[in-house]
Amino acid sequence: KDEPADMNIPDNYVDHTIKTVKPLPPITWENWYKELNWLNVAILGITPCIALYGMFTTKLQWETALFGVFYYFFTGLGITAGYHRLWAHRSYNASKPMEYTLALMGAGAVEGSIKWWARGHRAHHRYTDTDLDPYGAHRGLLWSHIGWMIVKPRRKPGVADVSDLSKNEIVRWQHRWYVYLILIMGFIVPTVVPGLLWGDYKGGYFYAGALRLLFVHHSTFCVNSLAHWLGDTPFDDKHTPRDHLITALVTIGEGYHNFHHQFPMDYRNAIKWYQYDPTKWFIWGCQQVGLASHLKVFPDNEVRKGQLTMQLKKLRQTQEDLSWPQESNDLPVISWESYLQQAEKRPLVSIAGFIHDVSSFLDEHPGGRHLLMKNIGRDATTAFFGGVYDHSNAAHNLLAMMRVGVLRGGVPHANEERAIPPSQKLRVLRY
Amino acid sequence: KDEPADMNIPDNYVDHTIKTVKPLPPITWENWYKELNWLNVAILGITPCIALYGMFTTKLQWETALFGVFYYFFTGLGITAGYHRLWAHRSYNASKPMEYTLALMGAGAVEGSIKWWARGHRAHHRYTDTDLDPYGAHRGLLWSHIGWMIVKPRRKPGVADVSDLSKNEIVRWQHRWYVYLILIMGFIVPTVVPGLLWGDYKGGYFYAGALRLLFVHHSTFCVNSLAHWLGDTPFDDKHTPRDHLITALVTIGEGYHNFHHQFPMDYRNAIKWYQYDPTKWFIWGCQQVGLASHLKVFPDNEVRKGQLTMQLKKLRQTQEDLSWPQESNDLPVISWESYLQQAEKRPLVSIAGFIHDVSSFLDEHPGGRHLLMKNIGRDATTAFFGGVYDHSNAAHNLLAMMRVGVLRGGVPHANEERAIPPSQKLRVLRY
Ligand code: HEM
Ligand code: HEM
Ligand SMILES: [Fe+2]
Ligand SMILES: [Fe+2]
Ligand SMILES: [Fe+2]
Ligand SMILES: [Fe+2]
Repeated sequence: KDEPADMNIPDNYVDHTIKTVKPLPPITWENWYKELNWLNVAILGITPCIALYGMFTTKLQWETALFGVFYYFFTGLGITAGYHRLWAHRSYNASKPMEYTLALMGAGAVEGSIKWWARGHRAHHRYTDTDLDPYGAHRGLLWSHIGWMIVKPRRKPGVADVSDLSKNEIVRWQHRWYVYLILIMGFIVPTVVPGLLWGDYKGGYFYAGALRLLFVHHSTFCVNSLAHWLGDTPFDDKHTPRDHLITALVTIGEGYHNFHHQFPMDYRNAIKWYQYDPTKWFIWGCQQVGLASHLKVFPDNEVRKGQLTMQLKKLRQTQEDLSWPQESNDLPVISWESYLQQAEKRPLVSIAGFIHDVSSFLDEHPGGRHLLMKNIGRDATTAFFGGVYDHSNAAHNLLAMMRVGVLRGGVPHANEERAIPPSQKLRVLRY
Repeated sequence: KDEPADMNIPDNYVDHTIKTVKPLPPITWENWYKELNWLNVAILGITPCIALYGMFTTKLQWETALFGVFYYFFTGLGITAGYHRLWAHRSYNASKPMEYTLALMGAGAVEGSIKWWARGHRAHHRYTDTDLDPYGAHRGLLWSHIGWMIVKPRRKPGVADVSDLSKNEIVRWQHRWYVYLILIMGFIVPTVVPGLLWGDYKGGYFYAGALRLLFVHHSTFCVNSLAHWLGDTPFDDKHTPRDHLITALVTIGEGYHNFHHQFPMDYRNAIKWYQYDPTKWFIWGCQQVGLASHLKVFPDNEVRKGQLTMQLKKLRQTQEDLSWPQESNDLPVISWESYLQQAEKRPLVSIAGFIHDVSSFLDEHPGGRHLLMKNIGRDATTAFFGGVYDHSNAAHNLLAMMRVGVLRGGVPHANEERAIPPSQKLRVLRY
């Protein structure tokens, strides 16, 4: 059957599944050792032991060190540019030679076959922060980093279609020979290259093999843990994914994860040239030499819309945190006669149809006490609006905070526009 | 007469004066030498000559160098903390000893008496960017930096009240003995201190005297030129004043000039602790030891309002630059039957009461072509809104851009809320 796995799922699939399919019992101090995934425990536990042993027994040669770093990026890119952006997200097309190369590079990272990996990753995107997400960042940093692998999953990940990959000859080829490819790319190549070229078989095995693999592993795991935990949400804050430079640095550019979850089919994770996204640079480079094509980019218009919404959300918070002037409707209406009367007892100044109590400001007025005093019980609209001094926007905002009444018949006299302080001419409004 | 100079000015003072009082003829290549202010030309021209001569003839000792830097800040603070923030803006109260000290420090900067300086400065704030502004930044960088001093002013600066200073005994004392104070503080002290302490009279005169004075001069001039030219306008963009770190560095902290013109009676120019405003630190320090009091601070609420308005202004521009979905009123109303018919010819999907043409997106859809195909000619509202996949805000925004019609009777069926993409739930609105 070539039909996609999710062709006929019901419209209430997520809720329905979570409600009806029982998860395995939670991991506790009593049961954990019965629930381990021994294969993963072995791979993830033995690698650091080998690396550690090597570090104590084998001197690191600089050629091997350099090669180790290179091989870290080489196999890491197999995951980020291959497994992730090419196969899981189809964010560009790769030529056959490039696909084979990426499949080999990715095998060297020893993280499962493309097919297994992409299936989990697609479910992660589709069910982010729910119990159907295999890496479930909502269950904590340790779980999303490594926990989900070392114990048996409590639930099957939600359905995700990988029928496109099942049809892909390279993906199938890699899946078929996967165990051999792991051995070759994960251990033999990094041992033999330094061995043949500068005679350092042992160093190659320990440093470019085991230690490098340890780094590649935790680098990739950070995309599931750190990238859902550290940083900002400049595009959307509905879910856990976040953008942070540190995450980008340790994951070969996958650290702009807030962007990535919004725009997963974009071949970029970072959109600014100065942000660290070597995987993007690598794909772009491959396009330049004709190995890759159809690099997908989400419309800039929609990217900026997401940012705009998030920025407006912040400013709306600021707007709500600030105190604003009282509106006409909330103020007593005062007649001119009553204004004159009251102005004899306290310093009231009429400006633009509002009556203001300036007592707190007499000695603070940069224009001097005298200019306020001489306008008590008078209309200072013209003087305030540039006749004597063209007050700053800040002065207008401050003035509005001193409102104590509306002048009967006052607002129509004054220009409507003037009754609104500059700070209220632009507002963030919610639908 | 103790009456403020601006007590009885007419309400249309600015316009009236500019229209009726004729300025002197403009400076041209023909007349400039007749229009020079020779006293200022002498002071501003001879100082660098003396400094230059000294630099070629006198070796700089490190003690003298250190003392020169100290004396630069010492006399510079006389201007920034004394002339500017204390006397011109009354932004705090200083005890008598402190006022005398500041008057002496300021005299060492050789920039005119407090009274003359504050009068011009108050006019500058009051008539910023008009022809009544003595430093008129609208007339170019050269004019505002030094031009306004070396030629006779084309107009009398606009009226500004300094009656408070005329009553101040220290200001009067400084004005009266000003010529002697210049000589003592500007030249004798910086010559004699290095002379007596480490025998470097000559170096003191040339470096701590003349060269230091050159720096103090142009440092202060930068407040009129650079501060109205370089940087951002985070509080208001009605006028030329700007905020910039570079300006702050060369002016002992007066570089947050956009803030300062909005809130001139605030003893701070920089409001964040990490911004460079040593003048503020100095005043604050004086308060700690009891020399200064009543440090004025503009209400934080109003400061943040100014920032909010400027940020909203930028976001409103972004909002206007982006393309937005068509509204119901601008779209054709389509019946269900007609939708079914048309969906046979092109890929139309009905979601939340709108008909969308997804042709451009079939192969871009991260969820796969098949999920779109199977919903052509159907209502995919439930599936799109989380039934099958809880689409991101970005997906909702993108969806709205594909609208080609409204379903007859469609919107009421769907939830109203759903008809509005997330990007349009918060909007910057203009009154
Ligand atoms: C309650 C009413 C008033 C408030 C809240 C107010 C506020 C302010 C503020 C904040 C400034 C500082 C500069 C600026 O932000 O633009 C200022 C300066 C000034 N105000 Fe007012 N003002 C009021 C009334 C008036 C009136 C009625 C007059 C004139 C008759 C006046 C004349 C001036 C002048 C001449 C300055 C310039 C002072 C300088 O820069 O040296 N003000 N005022
Ligand atoms: C024109 C209508 C549609 C648009 C514009 C659209 C857009 C998108 C976008 C932008 C994504 C990327 C992830 C995200 O931003 O949340 C996505 C993913 C997805 N969409 Fe749609 N979609 C549409 C219709 C549908 C329909 C009708 C279905 C289901 C029947 C569906 C199912 C999915 C699924 C399952 C994913 C997750 C794929 C993954 O993460 O691997 N989409 N869609
Ligand atoms: Fe993620
Ligand atoms: Fe992804
Ligand atoms: Fe200024
Ligand atoms: Fe000022």
